[in-house]
Amino acid sequence: MIPIISIVGKSDSGKTTLLEKFLPELVRRGYRIATVKHDVHGFEVDREGKDSWRHKQSGAHTVVISSPHKVAVIRDVEKDMTLDEIRERFIQDVDLLLSEGYKREVHPKIEIFRKEKHTELLCTKEDKLIAIVSNQAFDRGVPVFDLDDMKGLADFVEKKYLQPKEKKTVSLFVDGKAIPLNPFVRGFIAKSIRGMVNSLKGCNMAGSIQVRIDPEDK
Amino acid sequence: MIPIISIVGKSDSGKTTLLEKFLPELVRRGYRIATVKHDVHGFEVDREGKDSWRHKQSGAHTVVISSPHKVAVIRDVEKDMTLDEIRERFIQDVDLLLSEGYKREVHPKIEIFRKEKHTELLCTKEDKLIAIVSNQAFDRGVPVFDLDDMKGLADFVEKKYLQPKEKKTVSLFVDGKAIPLNPFVRGFIAKSIRGMVNSLKGCNMAGSIQVRIDPEDK
Repeated sequence: MIPIISIVGKSDSGKTTLLEKFLPELVRRGYRIATVKHDVHGFEVDREGKDSWRHKQSGAHTVVISSPHKVAVIRDVEKDMTLDEIRERFIQDVDLLLSEGYKREVHPKIEIFRKEKHTELLCTKEDKLIAIVSNQAFDRGVPVFDLDDMKGLADFVEKKYLQPKEKKTVSLFVDGKAIPLNPFVRGFIAKSIRGMVNSLKGCNMAGSIQVRIDPEDK
Repeated sequence: MIPIISIVGKSDSGKTTLLEKFLPELVRRGYRIATVKHDVHGFEVDREGKDSWRHKQSGAHTVVISSPHKVAVIRDVEKDMTLDEIRERFIQDVDLLLSEGYKREVHPKIEIFRKEKHTELLCTKEDKLIAIVSNQAFDRGVPVFDLDDMKGLADFVEKKYLQPKEKKTVSLFVDGKAIPLNPFVRGFIAKSIRGMVNSLKGCNMAGSIQVRIDPEDK
């Protein structure tokens, strides 16, 4: 299941700014990230007068704007959705879901705190606080990262919550030439050969496997 | 599966305007409609500078804006999605998917044609043309509706492509009081009783069923 972490903090603490610094660090490491922002005031669908805006105004329940690189889906809901519901219905193909806010939900939280703005943290440990990003020291039993230490924060999140990005687990060379493999084929080859090998006596704990087949075996 | 119909027409024929008139007629009849618009130029995520825009700019693959009445999901894709892919991944809880454009796909098409704008139709019958909306007569073997005849068009689409909106098929009165039933319970009761009744001799074609159980039968 895609892990969820919430970036929380009091008003004007710098949640969006933290996300702006944190996202590129995670993306640089090869992760795909989804973000969720709660907007209590609602929001506009596209720009007034544009076609999709006119569809929605005319009563469409769901409006999709599709382009070669991006898709937008805007739909009616009956009530505020929880992060779990959002993940379940809308989130695919990503490694991590970061919410801005959603302090009252049960997911792990990173609090941003700037001493020039506030005097008290928003979260307690009961809020599932897992880390603090701040220009002030805290002794709350969770790591505190400097406002600019995105590397430290990403190391921490990566270690605790993310699957290491898939390494190249299968290499295939044919007549000395490396053959590119897509994930499906890679998995198929890896699992098939591992299955064969595991069924051999004494090989049922095989770690790395190398197979070499010479032309004479044709 | 949710049916797909494409509203097509040459440039400036009035596709969006037709949707603006057609959507309210369908909504009035109790249908939930999704629309899809292709945007070759891409589009903006929210407004420049707003939080969700900043998330996307910072590299988020998917951005969700959640409010009590609407949810927006904006995500990266690798290539233009087909209507089938869009339906599969993003469309739930609606009765019909109407696309604006998508002439080259295989779904049924309604063409909008205004004689003051063009001289030739865009579609042939090979394009799965099912109806024309126009201020000009055509003899193409498909019905032609006047530009303002949304009732006629909706009747046609309803009859051919939509499930009639579920009527109140089960009424339950307990001690003379009407008991509200949600769709699950309604279906459960209807199917169970119909099953019982159908198994009785001579009743295997039962249409309407009424059951009355008196207090004495307790």
